[in-house]
Amino acid sequence: MVADSIINALRNTLGEGNFPLHEPRFAGNEQNYVQECIASTYVSSVGAYVDRFERELAAYTGARRAVAVVNGTAALQVALQLAGVQVNDEVIVPALTFVATANAVQYLGAVPHLADSEEATLGLDPRALRDWLKSVAEPTGDAYRNRQTGRRLRALVPMHTFGHPCDLEGLLAVAHDYRLPLIEDAAESLGSRYQSQHTGTCGLLGTLSFNGNKIITTGGGGAILTNDERLADHAKHLTTTAKLPHRWDYVHDEVGYNFRMPNLNAALGCAQLEQLPEFLASKRRLFERYQAALVEIDGVRLMQEPFGCESNYWLQTLVLSGAIADQRDGILQAINDAGLMTRPAWRLMHQLAPYQECPRAPLPVAESLAQRLINLPSSAGLA
Amino acid sequence: MVADSIINALRNTLGEGNFPLHEPRFAGNEQNYVQECIASTYVSSVGAYVDRFERELAAYTGARRAVAVVNGTAALQVALQLAGVQVNDEVIVPALTFVATANAVQYLGAVPHLADSEEATLGLDPRALRDWLKSVAEPTGDAYRNRQTGRRLRALVPMHTFGHPCDLEGLLAVAHDYRLPLIEDAAESLGSRYQSQHTGTCGLLGTLSFNGNKIITTGGGGAILTNDERLADHAKHLTTTAKLPHRWDYVHDEVGYNFRMPNLNAALGCAQLEQLPEFLASKRRLFERYQAALVEIDGVRLMQEPFGCESNYWLQTLVLSGAIADQRDGILQAINDAGLMTRPAWRLMHQLAPYQECPRAPLPVAESLAQRLINLPSSAGLA
Repeated sequence: MVADSIINALRNTLGEGNFPLHEPRFAGNEQNYVQECIASTYVSSVGAYVDRFERELAAYTGARRAVAVVNGTAALQVALQLAGVQVNDEVIVPALTFVATANAVQYLGAVPHLADSEEATLGLDPRALRDWLKSVAEPTGDAYRNRQTGRRLRALVPMHTFGHPCDLEGLLAVAHDYRLPLIEDAAESLGSRYQSQHTGTCGLLGTLSFNGNKIITTGGGGAILTNDERLADHAKHLTTTAKLPHRWDYVHDEVGYNFRMPNLNAALGCAQLEQLPEFLASKRRLFERYQAALVEIDGVRLMQEPFGCESNYWLQTLVLSGAIADQRDGILQAINDAGLMTRPAWRLMHQLAPYQECPRAPLPVAESLAQRLINLPSSAGLA
Repeated sequence: MVADSIINALRNTLGEGNFPLHEPRFAGNEQNYVQECIASTYVSSVGAYVDRFERELAAYTGARRAVAVVNGTAALQVALQLAGVQVNDEVIVPALTFVATANAVQYLGAVPHLADSEEATLGLDPRALRDWLKSVAEPTGDAYRNRQTGRRLRALVPMHTFGHPCDLEGLLAVAHDYRLPLIEDAAESLGSRYQSQHTGTCGLLGTLSFNGNKIITTGGGGAILTNDERLADHAKHLTTTAKLPHRWDYVHDEVGYNFRMPNLNAALGCAQLEQLPEFLASKRRLFERYQAALVEIDGVRLMQEPFGCESNYWLQTLVLSGAIADQRDGILQAINDAGLMTRPAWRLMHQLAPYQECPRAPLPVAESLAQRLINLPSSAGLA
């Protein structure tokens, strides 16, 4: 049975014991920095670690600026607002994504417009999207609108699934032709590069997540990346209650958010970022070991970084062939029962109650992939 | 000059040196708990410290349940949603408050409706509110609406200014008569009691903040309090992405939020909460010392807990007489220049660009108070 073969392959790679899907690794300066942070009393909304974390994120990703915030969802909400998304606009997002991508759109009173993914990247398919927009988008003034709903198409949000960069070149061309700012949801892809450019830095804005399950963690946290200084300044302003600088007066010039990352969490992040190269190397080794162990099993392949890309291999992913897709739940059951935590991809957005009425393109690939993906234990340090 | 008299009084109380308005105090188990948290690897969205912090907050406040979240603004946003606030509703809030109170209403697409405060509590004045509602509210089905705007009046949100409980008995009566759920913004009043009942537990829901400037801090954090188990369960669900429990499947049954408090921050909170009784005692001593030092100065009084209440004395507050209100900025300048950080109350909500068009009651007391309040250095440990 294929489940037994997979379990054997995982055991050969990981050894005995129980393995979570992904756990954080604190092998560096975490304790030191956090202790120093508490001793300084600057644990909250301002502090040296926040500034340092932002500087080091910008330097690492090559973005001109990084703005640290409270989580990846908040980062995406603010990035969309900065890109001009307003109430009743439509924002194109993948159907195959974590629910936060759609939620960030919804928080602004806008509507997710769901698009299909491609097998090679697990991300938005630019060819399918172009075909769809040809049929559904019509020009209106300086923008395009959805002729079926009458709503303005306002942004394009690809997400780099499990750390694999999607086809940014193709998507940027579609975005250009349909006058859509491109905002990368790079929550899962810190360390991943598209043709040597870090994900999250290829569009107008990009967003990162440092939730506990991500490649590095700040407990909870996220960041907005951009090469536009003006947008970065506005992001900082909006995420810090939109308060104007004054020695004592409290003037807020727009509706802002309490979205800053606390200095305590940034202290953890600075220590984690120092170890990122090591985490990336470990995850790549784990990919190679899983690959060697799984290569002989019929009907499964291990997801590999797309051509021309460098993936962070955040979550290792089995792709089942169509022939055994109907065995997925049995496989999940057996592997989880063996103490190896695995999980399927998310439910597609249009299969969730709050998003079932959203406009959507045909989703044949996303619907197929959703039945065929299994994430494997992937923590840094396993190999 | 009155500024010099105040500076002398502050120096007699505090001694030499520079004093911030309010800094956190980490004199307990902060380092231990945070180190233990990191060592456990559970720094993020679940963990023993979150559960413990919620249990201990409930026990301390007497609320049946407490739900820890990412900050006080998020707590209020979710509490308002749970109370039934919807797009285009109006929510009654004080004009004299921190902008987050109004922002939380705005995030839901609802509209802040500003009401006046009273001199005795610095909080909403139930008599003025009742008079205003008599003129502006008209019954419609099972609710009241603002006859001037046609919008439904959907909730009443008093805020306990600088930790002083407002007149909850009077406000609960108004809320009852106008069928408004009452949600307490208790961001500033952890440790404050109204007739022996902890603030935040007297209405349908209440919210706390643990920002770095509050009486205890988690870096960034907040909590929702309620005596209604069903609302508490829903609060937990909404603030944790509305994901249904399942071994591996990702089903979200409504639009949720990524608002959980990270375990790392809860670890800090558990240590802080242990010291709250001591912080409260220190702040009360500081009040008494300031009171003794300031009592001889004409034209100023120190804000004292309202009758029948126990204030946490979070921020000590000078109230200038009307006769010297026009000297406020000069007084602030002189005291700040002397190294003693002081600040005025917030700009009133209708004086901020995003809220200047909001419906509002006459605001004579709030407008007067806003010119006459000065917060003094107030950290725990100063006395």
